[in-house]
Amino acid sequence: MKAVVYKGPRDVVVKNVPDAKIEKATDVLVRITTTNICGSDLHMYEGRTDMEPGRIFGHENLGTVVEIGSAVDRVKLGDRVCMPFNIACGFCENCERGLTGFCLIANPGNAGAAYGFAGMGPYSGGQAELLRVPYADFNCLVLPPDAEEKENDYVMLSDIFPTGYHATELAGVQAGDSVVIYGAGPVGLMAAYSSIIKGASKVMVVDMHKDRLALAEKIGAIAVDDSDGSGVEQVMALTAGQGADRGCECVGYQCCDHKGHEVPNLTMNNLVKTVRPTGGIGVVGVFVPEDPHAKDKLAKHGQIAFDFGQFWIKGQHIGTGQANVKAYNRKLCKLIAEGKAKPSFIISHELSLDRAAEGYENFDARKDGWTKVILKPGQ
Amino acid sequence: MKAVVYKGPRDVVVKNVPDAKIEKATDVLVRITTTNICGSDLHMYEGRTDMEPGRIFGHENLGTVVEIGSAVDRVKLGDRVCMPFNIACGFCENCERGLTGFCLIANPGNAGAAYGFAGMGPYSGGQAELLRVPYADFNCLVLPPDAEEKENDYVMLSDIFPTGYHATELAGVQAGDSVVIYGAGPVGLMAAYSSIIKGASKVMVVDMHKDRLALAEKIGAIAVDDSDGSGVEQVMALTAGQGADRGCECVGYQCCDHKGHEVPNLTMNNLVKTVRPTGGIGVVGVFVPEDPHAKDKLAKHGQIAFDFGQFWIKGQHIGTGQANVKAYNRKLCKLIAEGKAKPSFIISHELSLDRAAEGYENFDARKDGWTKVILKPGQ
Amino acid sequence: MKAVVYKGPRDVVVKNVPDAKIEKATDVLVRITTTNICGSDLHMYEGRTDMEPGRIFGHENLGTVVEIGSAVDRVKLGDRVCMPFNIACGFCENCERGLTGFCLIANPGNAGAAYGFAGMGPYSGGQAELLRVPYADFNCLVLPPDAEEKENDYVMLSDIFPTGYHATELAGVQAGDSVVIYGAGPVGLMAAYSSIIKGASKVMVVDMHKDRLALAEKIGAIAVDDSDGSGVEQVMALTAGQGADRGCECVGYQCCDHKGHEVPNLTMNNLVKTVRPTGGIGVVGVFVPEDPHAKDKLAKHGQIAFDFGQFWIKGQHIGTGQANVKAYNRKLCKLIAEGKAKPSFIISHELSLDRAAEGYENFDARKDGWTKVILKPGQ
Amino acid sequence: MKAVVYKGPRDVVVKNVPDAKIEKATDVLVRITTTNICGSDLHMYEGRTDMEPGRIFGHENLGTVVEIGSAVDRVKLGDRVCMPFNIACGFCENCERGLTGFCLIANPGNAGAAYGFAGMGPYSGGQAELLRVPYADFNCLVLPPDAEEKENDYVMLSDIFPTGYHATELAGVQAGDSVVIYGAGPVGLMAAYSSIIKGASKVMVVDMHKDRLALAEKIGAIAVDDSDGSGVEQVMALTAGQGADRGCECVGYQCCDHKGHEVPNLTMNNLVKTVRPTGGIGVVGVFVPEDPHAKDKLAKHGQIAFDFGQFWIKGQHIGTGQANVKAYNRKLCKLIAEGKAKPSFIISHELSLDRAAEGYENFDARKDGWTKVILKPGQ
Repeated sequence: MKAVVYKGPRDVVVKNVPDAKIEKATDVLVRITTTNICGSDLHMYEGRTDMEPGRIFGHENLGTVVEIGSAVDRVKLGDRVCMPFNIACGFCENCERGLTGFCLIANPGNAGAAYGFAGMGPYSGGQAELLRVPYADFNCLVLPPDAEEKENDYVMLSDIFPTGYHATELAGVQAGDSVVIYGAGPVGLMAAYSSIIKGASKVMVVDMHKDRLALAEKIGAIAVDDSDGSGVEQVMALTAGQGADRGCECVGYQCCDHKGHEVPNLTMNNLVKTVRPTGGIGVVGVFVPEDPHAKDKLAKHGQIAFDFGQFWIKGQHIGTGQANVKAYNRKLCKLIAEGKAKPSFIISHELSLDRAAEGYENFDARKDGWTKVILKPGQ
Repeated sequence: MKAVVYKGPRDVVVKNVPDAKIEKATDVLVRITTTNICGSDLHMYEGRTDMEPGRIFGHENLGTVVEIGSAVDRVKLGDRVCMPFNIACGFCENCERGLTGFCLIANPGNAGAAYGFAGMGPYSGGQAELLRVPYADFNCLVLPPDAEEKENDYVMLSDIFPTGYHATELAGVQAGDSVVIYGAGPVGLMAAYSSIIKGASKVMVVDMHKDRLALAEKIGAIAVDDSDGSGVEQVMALTAGQGADRGCECVGYQCCDHKGHEVPNLTMNNLVKTVRPTGGIGVVGVFVPEDPHAKDKLAKHGQIAFDFGQFWIKGQHIGTGQANVKAYNRKLCKLIAEGKAKPSFIISHELSLDRAAEGYENFDARKDGWTKVILKPGQ
Repeated sequence: MKAVVYKGPRDVVVKNVPDAKIEKATDVLVRITTTNICGSDLHMYEGRTDMEPGRIFGHENLGTVVEIGSAVDRVKLGDRVCMPFNIACGFCENCERGLTGFCLIANPGNAGAAYGFAGMGPYSGGQAELLRVPYADFNCLVLPPDAEEKENDYVMLSDIFPTGYHATELAGVQAGDSVVIYGAGPVGLMAAYSSIIKGASKVMVVDMHKDRLALAEKIGAIAVDDSDGSGVEQVMALTAGQGADRGCECVGYQCCDHKGHEVPNLTMNNLVKTVRPTGGIGVVGVFVPEDPHAKDKLAKHGQIAFDFGQFWIKGQHIGTGQANVKAYNRKLCKLIAEGKAKPSFIISHELSLDRAAEGYENFDARKDGWTKVILKPGQ
Repeated sequence: MKAVVYKGPRDVVVKNVPDAKIEKATDVLVRITTTNICGSDLHMYEGRTDMEPGRIFGHENLGTVVEIGSAVDRVKLGDRVCMPFNIACGFCENCERGLTGFCLIANPGNAGAAYGFAGMGPYSGGQAELLRVPYADFNCLVLPPDAEEKENDYVMLSDIFPTGYHATELAGVQAGDSVVIYGAGPVGLMAAYSSIIKGASKVMVVDMHKDRLALAEKIGAIAVDDSDGSGVEQVMALTAGQGADRGCECVGYQCCDHKGHEVPNLTMNNLVKTVRPTGGIGVVGVFVPEDPHAKDKLAKHGQIAFDFGQFWIKGQHIGTGQANVKAYNRKLCKLIAEGKAKPSFIISHELSLDRAAEGYENFDARKDGWTKVILKPGQ
């Protein structure tokens, strides 16, 4: 089968590899029809992780079931399915409480597994023609009858829509709240979209890329252009000096200031400043326990200089971590099926699998207009 | 009246001052019968805040109502009452949601007011013979008939018992959980006591003072002696290498390592290490937005070098801030009244008001055996 | 002043009465500019309660503060304010937990007080030129600068918008849920509107009045016309035979079947049937502990023949009771201020106070097109 | 193998039947070492259900894994395991949210499956030497090393301890609350025990059997002897006329008054009376959708004459249904392992499997001193 293979920093290639296949009785095999490039793929693409060359990328996957293991009960041949990026067993202490992003079984010795991801277990990614799905009855979301027609919406259930939604849950967003979101990348926009779906009264999205800010406005959020470093003041003015009720971090450790320097504590400290006392902050941007190549001394050891005193005095709270996709994908699926959500608005480029390298290069460069790239292995 | 007056760093004096009196129709005047010295008084006592000389200390107060304002409805002359250390209006946006530690009215321009506290409004403290209580119908907890007999228990409802309980709420402690608590001072011990009351399966308290660790054991917790710096390893061993379900920070920014050096990020990073993935952390130890006299560069600006990458990867969450005492004081009062809780176990010294200076000096020195000092103005 | 006075069953009159005035230092006096007739006024109007002749109706009130008591801190002369229908002290055991619909002080011996309401204390209603507001700092919602322009929206914060929202909270409605609502009166429509604001995937409203069902469709809900008694089957068909995730009761004890007979257990048993296993049901329609004039034997004693076995087997849960308006009015106010909610869509008739009797008569008759009547005392 | 087989009303026999065996790759086979008789077995034993003669009883099971299916990952040969009475797939819409008592897959067309239970699927019970456990990785709680020593405690994790705990969760019991529990049978006593573990300030247990009330007192609850029908008044007196904060129904539809007549609405209406306004009620006693042999007309159709008006005016809430055992069994297991809970106090009789008929007969007769019977198949 053809697959997107990582060769080294900023170097991916589409080439033939052995077919994915069923390995356990609880697996299914899926023929991938849509698979996205994710912002978190870029950390690996840029060589900022210990991703092994030769592995297949891709954790945002949707396709058709073409083979089922002998112990699979619920998923049927021909089902159209979307897989959470998390691989989860369904029966460990964390999974049984819905914390599927922290499965203790799928990646022994760690909490959490994923397809085609550094440090998240030996699983191949889905930027390929075929994908092996472990614990398939637990991990496959079987899609409604309109799956084909709305495929570009449903594929967002694999990661960014639930991840954006998770940010709003961690922050505690409820109807009537004001929300400030740092980052207008795909996840930040999905956090804004989720806030709007939940009935937030005011949603502010802070970023420096005009194409992304335009998308934020398109869905009804207020774009806060931070390209002159005035984002914090703008948010305070928009909230009558009080700060927002809730805030979301959707950038992560490679955050840059308006001059383009990596400043790892920037978004977190800005959140502390621009969220009001007793407010909640949800952090879904990726932070890493160590970053050996970072210039910043603290960053090497996964630390940030955090305004903890201010945070404490304001009595704020922070929730973090990757999304437990299964906690949200069914309900978000219903919103798509009923025509209440259309997350495909995020897509800027739809490419054949063969053009994956082009997609990576431009998306990584944050090239104007490249907000979200999806790949179509079958085409 | 006699009162404990702050003169300057490590210098308090008991002297005559003008009587406290009713200033507004919603006030009551309370004759104080018990008032405690709190660990957070020590930050002021040591000169680490901008506390103004001449002010009266004391935010853990209990006494008898001796005069009531004309608009007071519920509180009656002669009622024995215990006041939350927070002063709260009862009708602002935060108070009406129960966030009385962040009242927007009682200390205009800030979120939160208190008796005799730096930066928490102009209110005098209760280490005195008389105390003015604003918004008295809201701020007085009227005690049950056995108030006199259990006065040393009920006075703990003013601060440390609810504050310890708040730590466990912020951390999300539920029946069956394992809990690690950093700090065996009065608040840490109350967090341990609260965890035990809530049915925690295992409560571990980390400290270096043997007298305090002995109290932890007395109430059924496991004492973790960190005097050789092995606390983290001991907690991991006690939790089969998994970390505790929940953790509480009950030390604050003046945290010291086992060699006696102030290391402001020590307890927070140890909590990240010793709480398991997806676990919760409650922080009630005081952290300050700036600390000009700190030696540590980050600490001057209220920052700590925080293991944010590890925190994020583990998907933990943190809640912070001073306790909203009114959220808990009624239910904890019932536990005392029904004989299910007896927080007076913490008291090591009961002194007349005149001996306050001696109490401050010894408590501040963490002198062996001085775990909690209460003052008796009437005696 | 002029006021709407109850004379007896189906008989109200607008006449001169002594001016409302400040009685306590914590009161304010409000000149009413808008006051609504509520569906719960009709229970009294019809003589189904022990409402005393001579009392003034009206618990949905908005106006301008024209006098303030000496102990009022926050509310200012000239403020435009909207009052929750609940009168609450702000400092009793229930109020301090936000359960302002069950205040233990404002109506001694009972849990809950209201303006102009049978059994809810001695307070006069606001269908008049002036209204006395007790515990004014707690009970007045001070409106934003656009209060006059959006007065017909903001007045809905007094009762029906929060009450409809409360139904969805009791039922546990969250983004993605399907919701079935029994009753398309003002409260039912507000429950539907609230569900839509919160991101429900499918909102079904069951009623028999075509004008009201048309309003349900106008806001994006699915109208289920039960005039042939097929409502239950329609809901089951709309939910693929599973039942809705959540259900709301917005009719109350005077519920009628499609033949026009009062059948007090109809909506509750239909909810049990049409909500899926483990689903939640919120009940804000009024049920009464006794109804001496009821024909039904059980109803006389406030009982219904409830499908408890089915309810239990399905593991459903029910929340009930009048809304704690203050729990919601601020956040709903923000939605109006930000242009995200416009509850005035419900208004069918805007009358001068003098025409109140006409309003009562037609609204009580559920005359076609009379969905919601508001009165304008100043006009 | 030997097994307890149902022959007809009040007739069970221990006889040889074909061995239980692995049927699917996800099954394990367990050699049962302890299996309890449950109060809900009595409904079937008495012929009040449509239980088919010939089936094997027993849903409270513990034993040793003696064979594992080929797709089982986590459970190992020789593991000592305790099974929730619910059989759940782990991957349906309800299971993935933790609602394992309402699994949509294990008993197709219904929500919820169980071992050896009328209407809960074709699964055989565990009052036998061997038990087939479906979806074993999900359904087996692997016990700690002290499993054998504390077997009589751990077996209570299969049903009554989690079910009692569930009652307190449905009711919302928290530290400091007062709780009234109707029924001092095994489940009622476990609800009392759970309330005490959670830090309730006052736990009142209402029943008429002196042996059971004595057990309630032994664990620290207040026994309310209702044998003269004064239970309601006693509870009101114990709560200063306010009613308890929370209430639990642990009797079910076969509730009898103090004269011995079955009065199906008695406990529910007493709960409405004796729980205070805004309080919560958890119902784990079994109610059935139809009861053809009932004398009461309403009861035949699964209805009760419920004080809905009183319930609504008081703004109470009710949660119902069988326990999702997996939501609680791990945490309760930890309490046993750490020596904080010892639910075996409930056991009155430990019999060999052969004496099952004697156990059923005496337990069904509520014979004095027969509070809980456990069977030991291996002995």
